[in-house]
Amino acid sequence: MLQPGLMMDFPLTIPAILRRAAQVFPEKQIISRLGDGSLHRYTYGDLNRRVLRLMNVLRDLGVKSGDRVATFAWNSYRHLELYFAVPALGAILHPLNIRLFPEQLLYILQHAKDRAVFADRSLAGFFAEHQSALKTVEHYVLMDDCVSSSVALPTAALDYETLLAGAREEACFPVYDENSAASLCYTSGTTGDPKGVLYSHRSVYLHAMGCCMADSFGIREQEVVLPVVPMYHANAWGLPYACAMTGATQVLPGSQLFGKPLAELMERERVTFAAGVPTIWNLFYQHLQQHSYDLSHLKVILSGGSAISQSLIANYEREFGIQVLNAWGMTETSPVGSLCRLKAQMEDWPSEDRLRVRIKQGLPVANLEMRIRNEAGEELLRDGKEAGELEVRGPWVARAYYGSSAADCAFTEDGWFQTGDIATLDADGYMEITDRKKDVIKSRGEWISSVEMENVVLSHTAILEAAVVGRSDALRGEAPVLYAVLRDPQQHVAPQELLEALKSHFAQWQLPRLSDIHFVDSLPKTSVGKMDKKALRSGSKE
Amino acid sequence: MLQPGLMMDFPLTIPAILRRAAQVFPEKQIISRLGDGSLHRYTYGDLNRRVLRLMNVLRDLGVKSGDRVATFAWNSYRHLELYFAVPALGAILHPLNIRLFPEQLLYILQHAKDRAVFADRSLAGFFAEHQSALKTVEHYVLMDDCVSSSVALPTAALDYETLLAGAREEACFPVYDENSAASLCYTSGTTGDPKGVLYSHRSVYLHAMGCCMADSFGIREQEVVLPVVPMYHANAWGLPYACAMTGATQVLPGSQLFGKPLAELMERERVTFAAGVPTIWNLFYQHLQQHSYDLSHLKVILSGGSAISQSLIANYEREFGIQVLNAWGMTETSPVGSLCRLKAQMEDWPSEDRLRVRIKQGLPVANLEMRIRNEAGEELLRDGKEAGELEVRGPWVARAYYGSSAADCAFTEDGWFQTGDIATLDADGYMEITDRKKDVIKSRGEWISSVEMENVVLSHTAILEAAVVGRSDALRGEAPVLYAVLRDPQQHVAPQELLEALKSHFAQWQLPRLSDIHFVDSLPKTSVGKMDKKALRSGSKE
Repeated sequence: MLQPGLMMDFPLTIPAILRRAAQVFPEKQIISRLGDGSLHRYTYGDLNRRVLRLMNVLRDLGVKSGDRVATFAWNSYRHLELYFAVPALGAILHPLNIRLFPEQLLYILQHAKDRAVFADRSLAGFFAEHQSALKTVEHYVLMDDCVSSSVALPTAALDYETLLAGAREEACFPVYDENSAASLCYTSGTTGDPKGVLYSHRSVYLHAMGCCMADSFGIREQEVVLPVVPMYHANAWGLPYACAMTGATQVLPGSQLFGKPLAELMERERVTFAAGVPTIWNLFYQHLQQHSYDLSHLKVILSGGSAISQSLIANYEREFGIQVLNAWGMTETSPVGSLCRLKAQMEDWPSEDRLRVRIKQGLPVANLEMRIRNEAGEELLRDGKEAGELEVRGPWVARAYYGSSAADCAFTEDGWFQTGDIATLDADGYMEITDRKKDVIKSRGEWISSVEMENVVLSHTAILEAAVVGRSDALRGEAPVLYAVLRDPQQHVAPQELLEALKSHFAQWQLPRLSDIHFVDSLPKTSVGKMDKKALRSGSKE
Repeated sequence: MLQPGLMMDFPLTIPAILRRAAQVFPEKQIISRLGDGSLHRYTYGDLNRRVLRLMNVLRDLGVKSGDRVATFAWNSYRHLELYFAVPALGAILHPLNIRLFPEQLLYILQHAKDRAVFADRSLAGFFAEHQSALKTVEHYVLMDDCVSSSVALPTAALDYETLLAGAREEACFPVYDENSAASLCYTSGTTGDPKGVLYSHRSVYLHAMGCCMADSFGIREQEVVLPVVPMYHANAWGLPYACAMTGATQVLPGSQLFGKPLAELMERERVTFAAGVPTIWNLFYQHLQQHSYDLSHLKVILSGGSAISQSLIANYEREFGIQVLNAWGMTETSPVGSLCRLKAQMEDWPSEDRLRVRIKQGLPVANLEMRIRNEAGEELLRDGKEAGELEVRGPWVARAYYGSSAADCAFTEDGWFQTGDIATLDADGYMEITDRKKDVIKSRGEWISSVEMENVVLSHTAILEAAVVGRSDALRGEAPVLYAVLRDPQQHVAPQELLEALKSHFAQWQLPRLSDIHFVDSLPKTSVGKMDKKALRSGSKE
């Protein structure tokens, strides 16, 4: 019989992260950019005291353990306070994506049955309009984000600061198991209804530890971290918790996530580590090319959410000395799943070969396991060639969707999550996404990787964005259709030129027809800034 | 009621670390220095295949889950194989300290009731001699460590390689809870009988993750790690598991842990990170001063187990560009408890102030919490001045000793472990040990810090080692007695000179008498290389 170890039963919970921040890093700063451009500064010590007050506010509002408390806000210190206070109380933090369409928001709020909503004042219009439909919401609490706006406000809304001013600071933490629910995020849902992922204290805590591992994000006390990724997007990739765990300085950028305001904030606060989707970094690069800032402290840009181009990685490194790290993850994986750092033996490789690795989604982070399987369910070789559906497992991977039948087909019987991504794994352990399963183009019975085709097009210096989708084709089954956005609309590129570039990477039968190469002003995006291929496909049918 | 999170129930177990090493880092190397000076090289892929065989060997020997399997060996690849195979099987790895006295070994083996012993051939003499007394041990397996020796061997001993050659490679991992016992280490026991600490898979796994956090050891794939710390000393500080988790190269140095063999090994294998006790680094520094090696890859020396001197930190940095990191821990804390890295705001401090911080034991690592209490049980201020007994808690801290009554006084009722160390905590979160509780010198009702006094003496360039203990004194209660070892026996230092140095740091009543300052050829050490103050104290009575 197995003997239990004799180690402490120390639960991995979010309040332990806060305790650490308050005791070991009380002087370290959290800086928030408000709607009027001013900066709010306080420390982890202040954060802790206000979280204690906020917990008492929540308690007084009748929020009980297990209740869902929604947020509807930009990245700011108040949002961060909710990140700690709600789970600390045993309730469930539910950050809503402020960019969703009203019908999606209604669906999610009704599905989650949120009891309270904490909203930035300037964003509260949605709730004023739909208040009658949101029957479970008992309280609206507004946070003044210093935006002069005249939006309608929900009736009987409370004011965040008034509540905090009237609250006790007395600490009273309930005791619960580390497997208790801590927060709830819904997938962006490019297909079907949004689905909820219910994170546990344990999964959030382990994920935060993971983010601090040297080969993952490597968050440490000396970093100044700016999450451009919104706090409603998969827990801002775990950064708020990872920073608190290590005492890293947090710079919360509010609503202006582009060009001048972003660059000025990075310059002023000497940001060392920033994280966001490729679209942000693509536009930001253009801005940096045209303006001059001192970003000498910025060492790492973390890019995730969709594929990044080789040229963008190369350009940031060459022109600004900034390392762009490619990462992969999903709401269902908390979200960090893999990260692309080169192995020691690759450091001496020619720059071209290194770039070829760096656009891969990278090595699974510690704690996460990956395999690829074909449609018959057979595990495929890790040779960098065989492509199949990527499956993952680990302590911060979902085993079911919230309020959904347990038999959801995304979860295999032997305990893996099917990501819906088509990927290869190579002998060095690197994973590369070749497509979303639903975006795969099947031509003459074989797959064409839309992502690979996009990468080739993006290596053309005149191209800003590219997307490849399939259209049905009588002869080939499906045929690729290419949409490209010019970096400079004045600088014309002939479709033939792109086709020529593709010829050295694809077989003749895989190439798009010349008439299937389109230049467009912009590409449709989802609410979290990913390419919306569903919209493109429906466009390509017209 | 709390809702359960819907995350995977993924147990944190040692086989998961091995799976990761085999899948993601199969090509990364493990290098072992054997007794004849030759190097053995293989990969994590090889390690994995041999662990599978070893598991079958253990199974065939009748080792069952929960059984203790002792090791008696230097740091080498076979020892590493046991580190994985024994816990993977659900059995308990029990590394024995090869430097203990026979009576201590007998006590520990009888207390642990080990069923099998895996010993380096050259170390097997002890077991031949005491075989009849070791009634629980059914099997002795000898590992040829390439030392030509003529020690007696236990009867009916088996050969490791013969067993492995005959075993299947088929994988068959039992399923168990993460709280199952994984390994057992006994404290070195400078007072009383050695006590066993029974680590769980969870505690070992979390500790390994902790070692890989950027602000802890920061182990990552690119490191080449050489644990001078023996694998029988608190799991070699978690390094074997942390390296496997991240694919770091491991260099296992065998028995020659000094001067030329150590420096040559570091040079040849381009070691980046080495870990051991201060005594090792003190002597190693002397060797490096007199000989020339290319140690340009060596960035970090981790020092733990006892206090380190300011001058040693300064010398390594100035002369060799090597950062010496001071760490603190105990067998009861797995062992990593704290680590001294400077906070961002200290980077601009004058070098002297920075050194003053760097000899502290540092910030508690993430997951570990610390408090200090006085003898009345009152928690003391975190002001860097008030000193009290250090108490810790966390997921890799023991809650009881193995086979001992649960009511052991080292464990408080509210769930903290009393370390027996006297320490301060400062406002920045740094912990500094001022004494072992039993080494405290109480003079005129107040404490004199022996550690602080030793540090002052060690800042004298002619002094290699120093120890301060108390002797009973009619007038003062206790009075300090100073023992010092000269770096160069020819270079005489007057006791008066040391006394003068102490005067600027201590009050008159705290100083040792001139006749209590002794120069000695060496200082007594315990089996793990710590200063043996018990022996010194009994000497000072004579």
